[in-house]
Amino acid sequence: MALNPIISLAITKISSAGSIETSDALAIEEPLEIRLEFGPKENRSAQNISVTMRTPGNDPELALGFLFTEGIIPKHEDVDLIEHCFIACAENKENVIQVSLGENAIPHLQNTERNFYTTSSCGVCGKGSINAIRTVGNYIDQKDNNSIDTTILHQLPETLSHHQKVFADTGGLHASALFTQKGELLLVREDVGRHNALDKLIGAALNKNWLPLTNNILLLSGRASFELVQKAAMAGITVIAAVGAPSSLAVQLAEEFNITLIGFLRNNRFNIYTAAHRIVIPEYEITH
Amino acid sequence: MALNPIISLAITKISSAGSIETSDALAIEEPLEIRLEFGPKENRSAQNISVTMRTPGNDPELALGFLFTEGIIPKHEDVDLIEHCFIACAENKENVIQVSLGENAIPHLQNTERNFYTTSSCGVCGKGSINAIRTVGNYIDQKDNNSIDTTILHQLPETLSHHQKVFADTGGLHASALFTQKGELLLVREDVGRHNALDKLIGAALNKNWLPLTNNILLLSGRASFELVQKAAMAGITVIAAVGAPSSLAVQLAEEFNITLIGFLRNNRFNIYTAAHRIVIPEYEITH
Repeated sequence: MALNPIISLAITKISSAGSIETSDALAIEEPLEIRLEFGPKENRSAQNISVTMRTPGNDPELALGFLFTEGIIPKHEDVDLIEHCFIACAENKENVIQVSLGENAIPHLQNTERNFYTTSSCGVCGKGSINAIRTVGNYIDQKDNNSIDTTILHQLPETLSHHQKVFADTGGLHASALFTQKGELLLVREDVGRHNALDKLIGAALNKNWLPLTNNILLLSGRASFELVQKAAMAGITVIAAVGAPSSLAVQLAEEFNITLIGFLRNNRFNIYTAAHRIVIPEYEITH
Repeated sequence: MALNPIISLAITKISSAGSIETSDALAIEEPLEIRLEFGPKENRSAQNISVTMRTPGNDPELALGFLFTEGIIPKHEDVDLIEHCFIACAENKENVIQVSLGENAIPHLQNTERNFYTTSSCGVCGKGSINAIRTVGNYIDQKDNNSIDTTILHQLPETLSHHQKVFADTGGLHASALFTQKGELLLVREDVGRHNALDKLIGAALNKNWLPLTNNILLLSGRASFELVQKAAMAGITVIAAVGAPSSLAVQLAEEFNITLIGFLRNNRFNIYTAAHRIVIPEYEITH
């Protein structure tokens, strides 16, 4: 499925050289409605799960990644078919996608409101939310031997920038990228929404049967929020490196789940916020 | 209400000069639950409206701005009292805020699902959403004479950066800023969530009785999404300038509402996407 993620528009460009009428490439932002079909053959149910504002492209991965990281579909094998469907508006059928489960699969629909309600449990202190992820995640708290060299980390943003095609054209997209321990790029996904970019990436990894992503590095092109660390934890990711800053709750969640969280990865510098044991610092680089 | 938006954490800092144990300032991200109390004295109702992940600080403005830009409270006068409240967790009472309406005020609670459901009306093509905003907005489609000089626009990002205190400390926050036609800074609000920064700004402007913001400029520190243009439209804003890129749906909505949308405002350049008539380009700058 290759939907066009870019649109070209007439604009007025102003600079010190003057004003010209020209055109500009924009990242497309459009709603995607995710529908879930499930139940026995004689009595199928269909339910609208979410509408997300996303950049068209890799929609089946987005739907799969979203349902998995939200804990609604715990097992990939439960999914029979994912396809765009004609529902209300003939010219926009790309904006509705249906995920059909096998007859015996039972979706965890109480998790559709996980983000909303569990953050508000326990006086909205975040503790309820962390416990909720622990309950629904298959790969939380497992053992790993992931170990990354500082020199590998320094190279990741440049490797990503060579592959971030739509961003180069529009300047308007977030990216999530998956690397090996040795810094080899495995996957990149882009979107106007940072959570969508990560859902697409995790959906693609699910399709490749790569989960849990215990021995990989997740690179985020922007900031690391609570929501992104939460989704990464669901996929068993142990090392998250963000080009931007992390939020306080992102650090708290990473610490709780023993995830290595790195921020401000750029210009040959970075900060390690949690679980520094997975980062190998060359002897000669250690100063005090 | 001055909650601390920053926390200091122990980190490991890696650079070409080596590795040091130091501390880093992080933008705090915590959930805020917005509750609405309304109805006649003898029969008050209370309802949880939303939980948003926000940076603590200016919470009453955030709650007010959110309820207004979502069309739940059409009139500022309807609000009697906004205060943090003790509910579930003694040590985190700053994370629940209650907005109490006057006895005769009727909240438009069907709008609490506006973002979700109206984007999905009409086959999720976006048209339903635009019509929904037109219905709930008080200041949509009104006449204005707003007119801004290109030289004024070029100065805005630098003026903002002098005032964006938390960003300078953490590198982790979005800002929304309100300027006069002449480029004078009136208000700045910051948050880990770009929509929260704008809600705080519009809430503050409501408190000052400044709406509609017909003759102002709204500056966004990052990208311009559909959601931000939608909120700006609710406050009667006619000129939006973003340091980052706009999305396609942001441009579509701005065009529909005759809002001037500017993107990539930096380094003495910018692009005008819609309603260019409000931007005054010096004669000598016009080239072909």
